[in-house]
Amino acid sequence: MPNIKLVVIGNEILNGKIFDKNIYWLARFLNRNNLQLNQSIVAHDNYSELEKIFRQTIDETDIFITSGGLGPTKDDITKDFYENFFGLPIEKSEEAYAIVEENYKRKGMDFSTKETANCYPFLPKGVMPFNNPLGLAPGLGYKFDHRGKRKILLSAPGVPWELSAMVEEEFYPFIKKELSLNSSFTDRVNIRTKLIPEEKIFTTIAPNLWSQLEQLGQVSSLPQIIGIDITVSIEGKNQNEMNQKRTEIIKIVKDTPLKGAIWQIGETPLNEFIVQKAKEKKFTISTAESCTGGLIASLLTDISGSSEIFLGTAVTYSNSSKENIINVQNDTLEKFGAVSIETAKEMAEGTRKVFGSDIGISTTGIAGPLGGSKEKPVGTVCIGISDHNNTEAKLYNFSGERTALKTLFARMALYTLLDKIS
Amino acid sequence: MPNIKLVVIGNEILNGKIFDKNIYWLARFLNRNNLQLNQSIVAHDNYSELEKIFRQTIDETDIFITSGGLGPTKDDITKDFYENFFGLPIEKSEEAYAIVEENYKRKGMDFSTKETANCYPFLPKGVMPFNNPLGLAPGLGYKFDHRGKRKILLSAPGVPWELSAMVEEEFYPFIKKELSLNSSFTDRVNIRTKLIPEEKIFTTIAPNLWSQLEQLGQVSSLPQIIGIDITVSIEGKNQNEMNQKRTEIIKIVKDTPLKGAIWQIGETPLNEFIVQKAKEKKFTISTAESCTGGLIASLLTDISGSSEIFLGTAVTYSNSSKENIINVQNDTLEKFGAVSIETAKEMAEGTRKVFGSDIGISTTGIAGPLGGSKEKPVGTVCIGISDHNNTEAKLYNFSGERTALKTLFARMALYTLLDKIS
Repeated sequence: MPNIKLVVIGNEILNGKIFDKNIYWLARFLNRNNLQLNQSIVAHDNYSELEKIFRQTIDETDIFITSGGLGPTKDDITKDFYENFFGLPIEKSEEAYAIVEENYKRKGMDFSTKETANCYPFLPKGVMPFNNPLGLAPGLGYKFDHRGKRKILLSAPGVPWELSAMVEEEFYPFIKKELSLNSSFTDRVNIRTKLIPEEKIFTTIAPNLWSQLEQLGQVSSLPQIIGIDITVSIEGKNQNEMNQKRTEIIKIVKDTPLKGAIWQIGETPLNEFIVQKAKEKKFTISTAESCTGGLIASLLTDISGSSEIFLGTAVTYSNSSKENIINVQNDTLEKFGAVSIETAKEMAEGTRKVFGSDIGISTTGIAGPLGGSKEKPVGTVCIGISDHNNTEAKLYNFSGERTALKTLFARMALYTLLDKIS
Repeated sequence: MPNIKLVVIGNEILNGKIFDKNIYWLARFLNRNNLQLNQSIVAHDNYSELEKIFRQTIDETDIFITSGGLGPTKDDITKDFYENFFGLPIEKSEEAYAIVEENYKRKGMDFSTKETANCYPFLPKGVMPFNNPLGLAPGLGYKFDHRGKRKILLSAPGVPWELSAMVEEEFYPFIKKELSLNSSFTDRVNIRTKLIPEEKIFTTIAPNLWSQLEQLGQVSSLPQIIGIDITVSIEGKNQNEMNQKRTEIIKIVKDTPLKGAIWQIGETPLNEFIVQKAKEKKFTISTAESCTGGLIASLLTDISGSSEIFLGTAVTYSNSSKENIINVQNDTLEKFGAVSIETAKEMAEGTRKVFGSDIGISTTGIAGPLGGSKEKPVGTVCIGISDHNNTEAKLYNFSGERTALKTLFARMALYTLLDKIS
């Protein structure tokens, strides 16, 4: 398997202005295509720093992919790197020109020579241009030999969607062609559990689980939001061997007390999993959100096709909107308060009735940092759920800062929803 | 200034299971404290790989910070690295034991020796334990000399909130004490613009801007969602010099046609900026969201104190909920369709009246991938805004995949809201 290194070029990442999304995307893409990201380095837009990284790691690396530094401004130094490191003078490339012209056409823009004629179609001599399916600037590719070994350098823009489209449509087919990739099978078995903390799973709850799973592949354990994923990376000579290993791993985990905590064998995100299940069972859903402020609705509507099962949400931040829109009783609010089991129940039932859904789910709590009290500290949340037969609510306590709490509250509500649907 | 390197240890990041949040957080934190993250490397949980990174980069690096690999499971190898790289045998540390015991107490948990007695209080000999303000496992610190220079190695857990709390409360004071940090002033001036594409700014709109700004500091240009940040990193001997440079930079930018596109001099996120402005002007806000599915509400309620100005949201995914909850006319929906200027206007006005807010803002559009047509393709959105005097709406077209489109729609709605408030 080729050793692949991603070099993320960007001052703006190292000074904390933005966070990089390309490491995650590329790691995931390579893994799903039976390749492996071996290392990723985030470096400054600085020639001598890039040179050092290349010199230090070129022996072990087969394919370098760089992200960033291909734009039209002066801090974009990727082409300069090719020019100076390999001694390739920058010159106009007809092939790059054609790509850029076509990209402008696709976007319905005139290829005004004023703006980019000095930049996009000019490449270091001998460097291949790659199409940029979603942007304007072409990608770059260069093959060279180092100590008798073939090396590949590929450069994509830093904009995440441009990089991902370029890797999928251009770099990956190129890599496949260049290397005769071996076809041994690799996969991961991912078991998603909820509500049990990591430190208990492999000690008190299932002390032998790790070593049993290790017989079958490389084990890792990854904390998720209120839950843990246990992953076993497996290899095999054929699909049959892979299936056997997969079956055995699942059996081993289900033979432990973890069985009841498993909510999925797979890697589907919780929101997508709920939308799938609700579609299968033909349940419609609505939410009433106070402390989560629309986050549950936003998570569900991130999923394509959610409109089949998701009817709507009332984000009722004020007491009066709780009364007017989803018919929470004024008495209930006065007697028990907005953050209470009773209000959560009326909210869940209210939203179900107002939107005419099969299931209504509600959150009311204190995300802080203000608004907590001794009885109901920051982190308190009541989650209500209502269907045609039954309405109930529970109180939970979490800790963290405001957006973390919103995420925890929404996650707990989604687990509650999943239980109801399953 | 010390050369600081972050080594993110985690197979789960390189195989695409999770995305790292620590690079971003640490880069930001160091920058705000007049330090600089010089490089970040994401590496496998693998001893020989870590050893190679340390050997290759130790000459230039003053402080290594590692994240990850301190947990209780077998894939956590950070302590093994200290043991083998420096030859420090693992043994029980009374200091670490006290920290762990205290952390269990704080969480209201018994320090059951069963689970972690074999792990958390055991450290490589001579390594300092650091408190973990939000978690259980102590951090590690080690000072050593290499070629006559003092080096520091600090290790925090990979869990983002544990790392950030540990860096703030433990590592940073430690670093300050160890190094006599010089006190030259550094800062950045950040000018946030909207709606003008990057490739036009420095070419046709303000062709001399970049070189003018470069006289004053290091310039970078960073695409945001439907907008560009122009940043100039400045240095100075005293606060007075810094203020002069800041004033001059702002004047230079405002003397270009960019003036009208500037929405902020600063780094406040758009949602926080809107909440601040609305508080100042004492405006209350409500939203009616179709295609954004609650995302605008969730962004506004991410901000502490948003309850003063944000009253609520109706996420009306279905036509009937548009009619029932925010009183969109059935006629309007039939005649113009759900995605129309007319529906957007009625939604904005409807939510304003239902929630009793000063301003109502609405989105109705097609986030795809399904649901587009020739007249209204995926990416079409109508954004409505209503106050006591006026209700209007505009149609926009964007491109991207579903969650990217939701983000673009929400951003455009927030810009619309900001214009109304300002």
